[in-house]
Amino acid sequence: MYQLLSDLSIVEVSSFVASPTAGLYCAQMGAEVIRVDQIGGGLDYDRYMQTSEGRSLAWENLNRAKKSVALDLKSAEGRELCVELARKTGQLITNLPEKSFLSHAAVSAGRPDMISVRIMGWHDGRQAMDFTVNAASGYPLMTGPAEWDQDTAPPVNQVLPAWDFITGAYCAFTLMAALHHRAATGEGNEVRVPLGDVAIGTVANSGALAEMLYRGGDRPRLGNAIWGALGRDFASRDGQRFMVAVLTPNQWNAMVAALEIAEPIAALEAQAGVEFAKSDHNRFVHREALFAIVQEAAGKLDYAELAERLTRAGATFERYRTMFEAANDPVLVTDNPLFGPSPANPSGFAYPAPRSFAHLGGAAPADPAPAPYLGQHSEEVLATRVGLSSGAIHALIDRGVVAPSDRDGLRKTS
Amino acid sequence: MYQLLSDLSIVEVSSFVASPTAGLYCAQMGAEVIRVDQIGGGLDYDRYMQTSEGRSLAWENLNRAKKSVALDLKSAEGRELCVELARKTGQLITNLPEKSFLSHAAVSAGRPDMISVRIMGWHDGRQAMDFTVNAASGYPLMTGPAEWDQDTAPPVNQVLPAWDFITGAYCAFTLMAALHHRAATGEGNEVRVPLGDVAIGTVANSGALAEMLYRGGDRPRLGNAIWGALGRDFASRDGQRFMVAVLTPNQWNAMVAALEIAEPIAALEAQAGVEFAKSDHNRFVHREALFAIVQEAAGKLDYAELAERLTRAGATFERYRTMFEAANDPVLVTDNPLFGPSPANPSGFAYPAPRSFAHLGGAAPADPAPAPYLGQHSEEVLATRVGLSSGAIHALIDRGVVAPSDRDGLRKTS
Repeated sequence: MYQLLSDLSIVEVSSFVASPTAGLYCAQMGAEVIRVDQIGGGLDYDRYMQTSEGRSLAWENLNRAKKSVALDLKSAEGRELCVELARKTGQLITNLPEKSFLSHAAVSAGRPDMISVRIMGWHDGRQAMDFTVNAASGYPLMTGPAEWDQDTAPPVNQVLPAWDFITGAYCAFTLMAALHHRAATGEGNEVRVPLGDVAIGTVANSGALAEMLYRGGDRPRLGNAIWGALGRDFASRDGQRFMVAVLTPNQWNAMVAALEIAEPIAALEAQAGVEFAKSDHNRFVHREALFAIVQEAAGKLDYAELAERLTRAGATFERYRTMFEAANDPVLVTDNPLFGPSPANPSGFAYPAPRSFAHLGGAAPADPAPAPYLGQHSEEVLATRVGLSSGAIHALIDRGVVAPSDRDGLRKTS
Repeated sequence: MYQLLSDLSIVEVSSFVASPTAGLYCAQMGAEVIRVDQIGGGLDYDRYMQTSEGRSLAWENLNRAKKSVALDLKSAEGRELCVELARKTGQLITNLPEKSFLSHAAVSAGRPDMISVRIMGWHDGRQAMDFTVNAASGYPLMTGPAEWDQDTAPPVNQVLPAWDFITGAYCAFTLMAALHHRAATGEGNEVRVPLGDVAIGTVANSGALAEMLYRGGDRPRLGNAIWGALGRDFASRDGQRFMVAVLTPNQWNAMVAALEIAEPIAALEAQAGVEFAKSDHNRFVHREALFAIVQEAAGKLDYAELAERLTRAGATFERYRTMFEAANDPVLVTDNPLFGPSPANPSGFAYPAPRSFAHLGGAAPADPAPAPYLGQHSEEVLATRVGLSSGAIHALIDRGVVAPSDRDGLRKTS
């Protein structure tokens, strides 16, 4: 962990992926992030994969380095505690609806400098999740083999919940932007970020929305080929699949040199009357002929030799791995300074865990912090942030409004 | 545009998607973002789709609301100007390598409070792009039809450059975090964010890395089904495809009510000896039987009626659209307050463009600003930021070190 945000406290009332991610990024930068959950766990406390004891490996990775407070958010008293905690902290990330008990009006009462970042579904208040905004975005009907007929091709969902992760990172950014503005003006803000707007807005930011309107129709199916440039998956003699990306003259020259295909390339250039080295456009238009040349050369060598040649020439390529392979890959994980040991996870299962994606010059990062047990910091946070006495807290625990750590066993309500 | 960052100036020396996105998000929040490019355009100035005049619709959407300075970055003089501009501005976003002329050491010389955010390929300095880190992540071998045999299934690349967009948003966040730290301590920072670390780190943050290690193997193929919950694409009687997501009791009850499938569900519950309403686990384990019930009900109704019923019941669902449909959808674009008119694009093509994804309470957003012409602000920026005289700037233009706007025609060097 790097400590760029060590003077910042944030209350996170959240579930699933996008809002926990926003809090996670802040926590990995040293902020005190206090996640508040329903006693027994919120809607995401069971998310797959669970260990045999019922601990969610998703939850324990999306909530690393945070503190946990467990409240009965179905009770008026628990809700008021949650509102008061957010208000006294001054910064809130949530995916609860504006019309819930945790409205900006409630948390900012008497506190005009309050900052709330609220993740919504669609901008008009309709519910949405990553899976559903993705269906609307157009990407699933562009994904999958090029040979599939566009008119009958089924949608192919991306497995990565990309909209959630973009939204989470964007919300961490907007929180910091609102803090920047408050530091200059004293003003608070409610910032609402609809997941659906992140999806259709990203289609637009990428240029694809303008592209569709300019063309007056959909992009042709490309399979794994890169749009407007040269690149695709290829197979080595020993059956390894790898992706090659050529979007610059250097990448082109490297690939041609590594595969020793200057001769057939020159023949194709002469035949087609074009030059490839400086033109993405020419490489894209003639991609099928180029793919055939590249695949023929790749198929003559085992992957180890191909990788050695491509690396030496400075090409941009990568072997496809299954995720299990990736998880065990020394270059990606075990020997990667992004990762560190995480022996004290709530699941009891020890594995390498990532730090912040940001590497800071000179600073030696601490080991990744584990996620809390649910309710682990209920007493500490209510004492330090809300100012409750030990007696008052224990009375709340006795009445079931507050719960302490679930370390000694999951306290599921269902 | 909202003006949370109107007191902030950033120099962006960038190309492709991730680093321009970081600058875009800041510009859409009111920051002055000065993008510096090679005269004639950098590596991404031609990115598809191009208009018939050769204007890139990708470039003009990833660089909205920015200023543009065109320099000969192959010359020592142009490089020194670029370094000086970054140094005098104090904040830099770049994807140039640390070993380039734009090292942190160069831009921070005499300026210990300098903040650089540098996007890299892999953490060890190897080149990477979205396409290649994706191959390593494991996702392409989990994507595609469930029926495909895992051992022979080809990789399926996601079409969305998700790693670029997550990295871009994350880098905007890290820039703000470094600014926050500087405001408190006076310290600058170099922040390096490897695209490859964002990919494998996101696999880990999602819990999937721990999942693979805990299971000791890959996740079974799921096609479009949601992992650990209930959801998939279904088809209506009139052939519309839609995604339904059920991850909460409310979503379950809504779907069952809307499709009037309580009876077959009760029969399945009795037969399997389980209850579905409160358990993602049960719904996932019995997903094939549940999918059959849902598809049978969906197939009896046209989409319009299905959508009406699902909406009324409060289900979470969405129709798959092609991207051309999405781009023309009033709910997503034309009637969505995220979008506004953008008549003054460099391409001359007018279309709706997005503002910041963040909606701020009370503030009425301005129309989306267009991208600049390449070099449009060369003279202004070199005068105001570097302090050059008009005579000095024109001498640089005469020598080909600086170029003015390419409005009157693309000035391609190749």
